[in-house]
Amino acid sequence: MRRIIFVRHGLSEWNALNQFTGWVDVDLSDAGLKEAHEAGRKLKEAGIELDMAFTSVLKRAIKTCHIVLEESDQLWVPEIKTWRLNERHYGALQGLNKKATADKYGIEQVQLWRRSYDTLPPLLKPDDPNSALNDRRYANLQKRVVPMGEDLKSTLARVIPFWEDQIAPAILEGKTVLVAAHGNSLRALAKYIEEISDDDIMELEIPTGQPLVYELDDELAVIKKYYL
Amino acid sequence: MRRIIFVRHGLSEWNALNQFTGWVDVDLSDAGLKEAHEAGRKLKEAGIELDMAFTSVLKRAIKTCHIVLEESDQLWVPEIKTWRLNERHYGALQGLNKKATADKYGIEQVQLWRRSYDTLPPLLKPDDPNSALNDRRYANLQKRVVPMGEDLKSTLARVIPFWEDQIAPAILEGKTVLVAAHGNSLRALAKYIEEISDDDIMELEIPTGQPLVYELDDELAVIKKYYL
Repeated sequence: MRRIIFVRHGLSEWNALNQFTGWVDVDLSDAGLKEAHEAGRKLKEAGIELDMAFTSVLKRAIKTCHIVLEESDQLWVPEIKTWRLNERHYGALQGLNKKATADKYGIEQVQLWRRSYDTLPPLLKPDDPNSALNDRRYANLQKRVVPMGEDLKSTLARVIPFWEDQIAPAILEGKTVLVAAHGNSLRALAKYIEEISDDDIMELEIPTGQPLVYELDDELAVIKKYYL
Repeated sequence: MRRIIFVRHGLSEWNALNQFTGWVDVDLSDAGLKEAHEAGRKLKEAGIELDMAFTSVLKRAIKTCHIVLEESDQLWVPEIKTWRLNERHYGALQGLNKKATADKYGIEQVQLWRRSYDTLPPLLKPDDPNSALNDRRYANLQKRVVPMGEDLKSTLARVIPFWEDQIAPAILEGKTVLVAAHGNSLRALAKYIEEISDDDIMELEIPTGQPLVYELDDELAVIKKYYL
């Protein structure tokens, strides 16, 4: 049986502040840590033996990954961290309070940025001090590859090559795979795996800290999907 | 400047019990966790920017690695876990109390097992329930590769191929590398890097939780060696 398990990281320190996060590397809150432990316990109770783990280069996902592996007593499982599984980049909105942003731009505009498949947020300037170009972890990327803001469509465009090159081949080799990542990178993967339309995908919300299991056939089409 | 940093994991839950550990996957004690945090803080204070981390497939080293990376705010650094960096396999002595073993075999024999470069401990039987052959994390290894007991000489023989294939190339690419591992796998690496003789190596004790920095030239010969 071919299996992939998604775990979306839980509450971060910016949830309480109600701020747009995106690529900002904020930590998990205590509640988020608890969600990760709980997710790991569920994996263990379900007796799921992992062979491979993938996560982003943002600490809230990496820590979720580590906690899930440790709690299910398989911390030795190989792990790959990649910028391609990062959260959607929220452009110039990153760090802004959501309420203040709605006051400034109007609630409809903010809803569009949050809920539309292909409406880019206001972009960061490349020379903005908060640009990912100033972050050592992206130093090996060509400048033109580093996003200044993404919608779900462009998030999906950079997530799927990693699926094609690393995740899918691992599953096809018979490996049971964990992906510990973010709301929108997981949504992008779910859209691709489940072949969800551009219109319908924004309705899909993957809950935090609840391991989502896909059982897949030899073409990696979904046989069964359930939460632990 | 080419650099590699060793961190030997700190106290494990079996230290208090005074038991031979080897490949048994015991956890860090609270004191061991504290040592790892302290090591991470020292790296951060020294401003050391890592590009790559290597560790074993044993949780006391992996957790040390994660804590050091997190504490120095570089949890995103790529990490490779390998059985080749595991602690020396202590054969049939694993799980035995050191004092009881000395009472049974004599203190001189135990000293020989502990201090000699090339005296194998009593070997585990392959069908022993504690054999690594029964452990899923070694399932991809040929049976004949999985040790039933090692001296430092045979530990070195399996550590060095990993140095040659992964660690040395990373350093030669200009990467600053962390190795979070065990007393004897680090001793094996130190013997190789510093070209220490078989007689002298057993005198070298790398203290736990103290980052050991080697500055290396283009041939990876040691220019400078110091603890943070």
